[in-house]
Amino acid sequence: MQTALNLQAHIALVQAELDRLALPSSPALLYEPIRYFLNLGGKRLRPALLMESCVLMGGNLQEAIGPALAVELFHNFTLLHDDIMDEAPLRRNQATVHTRYNSSIAILSGDALFVLAYQQLLHTRPQALPELLTLFNQTALEVCEGQQLDMDLASMEEVKIDDYLKMIALKTSVLLAASLKMGALIAGANHADADLLYRFGKSLGIAFQIQDDILDIFGDPEKFGKQPGGDILSNKNTFLKLKAFELADEAQKNELKAAYALNSSSQAQEKVEQVTRLFEKLGVKALTEAEKERHLTDALQALDAVNMPESGKSGLRQYARFLVDREH
Amino acid sequence: MQTALNLQAHIALVQAELDRLALPSSPALLYEPIRYFLNLGGKRLRPALLMESCVLMGGNLQEAIGPALAVELFHNFTLLHDDIMDEAPLRRNQATVHTRYNSSIAILSGDALFVLAYQQLLHTRPQALPELLTLFNQTALEVCEGQQLDMDLASMEEVKIDDYLKMIALKTSVLLAASLKMGALIAGANHADADLLYRFGKSLGIAFQIQDDILDIFGDPEKFGKQPGGDILSNKNTFLKLKAFELADEAQKNELKAAYALNSSSQAQEKVEQVTRLFEKLGVKALTEAEKERHLTDALQALDAVNMPESGKSGLRQYARFLVDREH
Repeated sequence: MQTALNLQAHIALVQAELDRLALPSSPALLYEPIRYFLNLGGKRLRPALLMESCVLMGGNLQEAIGPALAVELFHNFTLLHDDIMDEAPLRRNQATVHTRYNSSIAILSGDALFVLAYQQLLHTRPQALPELLTLFNQTALEVCEGQQLDMDLASMEEVKIDDYLKMIALKTSVLLAASLKMGALIAGANHADADLLYRFGKSLGIAFQIQDDILDIFGDPEKFGKQPGGDILSNKNTFLKLKAFELADEAQKNELKAAYALNSSSQAQEKVEQVTRLFEKLGVKALTEAEKERHLTDALQALDAVNMPESGKSGLRQYARFLVDREH
Repeated sequence: MQTALNLQAHIALVQAELDRLALPSSPALLYEPIRYFLNLGGKRLRPALLMESCVLMGGNLQEAIGPALAVELFHNFTLLHDDIMDEAPLRRNQATVHTRYNSSIAILSGDALFVLAYQQLLHTRPQALPELLTLFNQTALEVCEGQQLDMDLASMEEVKIDDYLKMIALKTSVLLAASLKMGALIAGANHADADLLYRFGKSLGIAFQIQDDILDIFGDPEKFGKQPGGDILSNKNTFLKLKAFELADEAQKNELKAAYALNSSSQAQEKVEQVTRLFEKLGVKALTEAEKERHLTDALQALDAVNMPESGKSGLRQYARFLVDREH
């Protein structure tokens, strides 16, 4: 994708900085798991957008690198701990830290990774530090709230769509939003613009997550890189699932429940097929796409109001569209 | 104990601030465990010493309250996560968070508690913030290293006393040291004095931990509030245990190993008696007291060199002596 943005260069820079991040060698069981987890890769989306936001708002890229790394390290810390709580065996097709080592090591190396994030945050303009730290703390707390809400919803019989949207906003979007705002703050942008970029990131993040939900079921397996229906098999709350339950009449609700209750591995294919068929019958996909568009529209409206060169806005617009229509 | 210090007032202030710390009400399972854990109590030693150090170095007590809370919240965060890793059912005779709720909740509420600590750190002089944050991060990382080292040593056949001292320095002392240094930094003290106070705290912390080891076995149960020998029953590495193995001849080593191998609950009393008898035979207590004095002496030497009113030094001296001779 060709835009006025330099996201590919930022991603490469973040990756290079992560690769050369100096970790002590001892205690090995504290630092090795961190290196292992960082090497599993990732889109590096948040740090790249932080850097882009800083540059577009007239800031110095060098001053954004530390906070960009902070955001990426923090994101990895949350994934590392979430994997323990979710008892996930795999992350990017590799063993999770608690599986490869053990839970104690995963808890503690996660904690240390969190500290490394705060260490990186310091590498910026000292004048920007109090505001950055306040935003970073608030965001970190909200991400914890999102994860708790996710666990709360997972154990509930009926989940409201509003609660689901609140959960993904906290668990996923606020960090994207904060990344964009942090870039603006480092650039010394005014608060109105910084807040608009926050709103852009928050709504974009929700649309991004909804596309994630769509891809899991309707993605092209060849492009998506995994078999469809993982969220269905794990009975995960997604926008599609909740919308389906909202629209279903009593008979269809029972069909959905029966399909989701198929839990033996021999019934996996049948389960995905049954649930997908019901989703199609209920027209859930189109409604989910519409919900995604609603959040994207809000994101783009916020972006329009930012005081920023038109070429930058146009680049961010294209990139936002690309993200929420992505196929993997 | 009557000194020129105001530690009791500082402790009361920290406690009052903790009591009125505004935690969101939702998600309840994120914030309730934090309130529960903070309400279990504690000596509030570190924050009180941070405040005292600030005042003695000529600083403003008000500017020390936030960082003092940060240190106390961080300390509680480490205890909360350590309890999961140690599979400890009780903390201060009450259920630990992972026992009362579950491990996922304990991991996540611990993470949130860590963020609350960083939030409090912001409530101080902005000019002091970069240095405070740098020290706080470094200390947090070292405490993680200490906990990993503790787990490493717990699974080792033979533990060197030097490694044990390194472990308790990281796990216990650096936070006491950092508390004293942070108080000095908030007061705007020069680096030489701040570093001397750090050394005072670090050596005092080691002496404090060694006294902990002594009290577990030789403490007066009525004053100590628990039955002696808890560390023996859990086969914990302590200075006394490692010194005993260092001094023992082959026959005594085998006796020690046999005693430590008694693991059924019906043999608990016998185990404690046998190990204690061997400790007495080997003269371990006196050597442990001597080691404690060595660290106290180093602490007091550092204190002597600090540029601070003599009444303050005298108060800290008395308090240090009180801490390492305490009976509970």
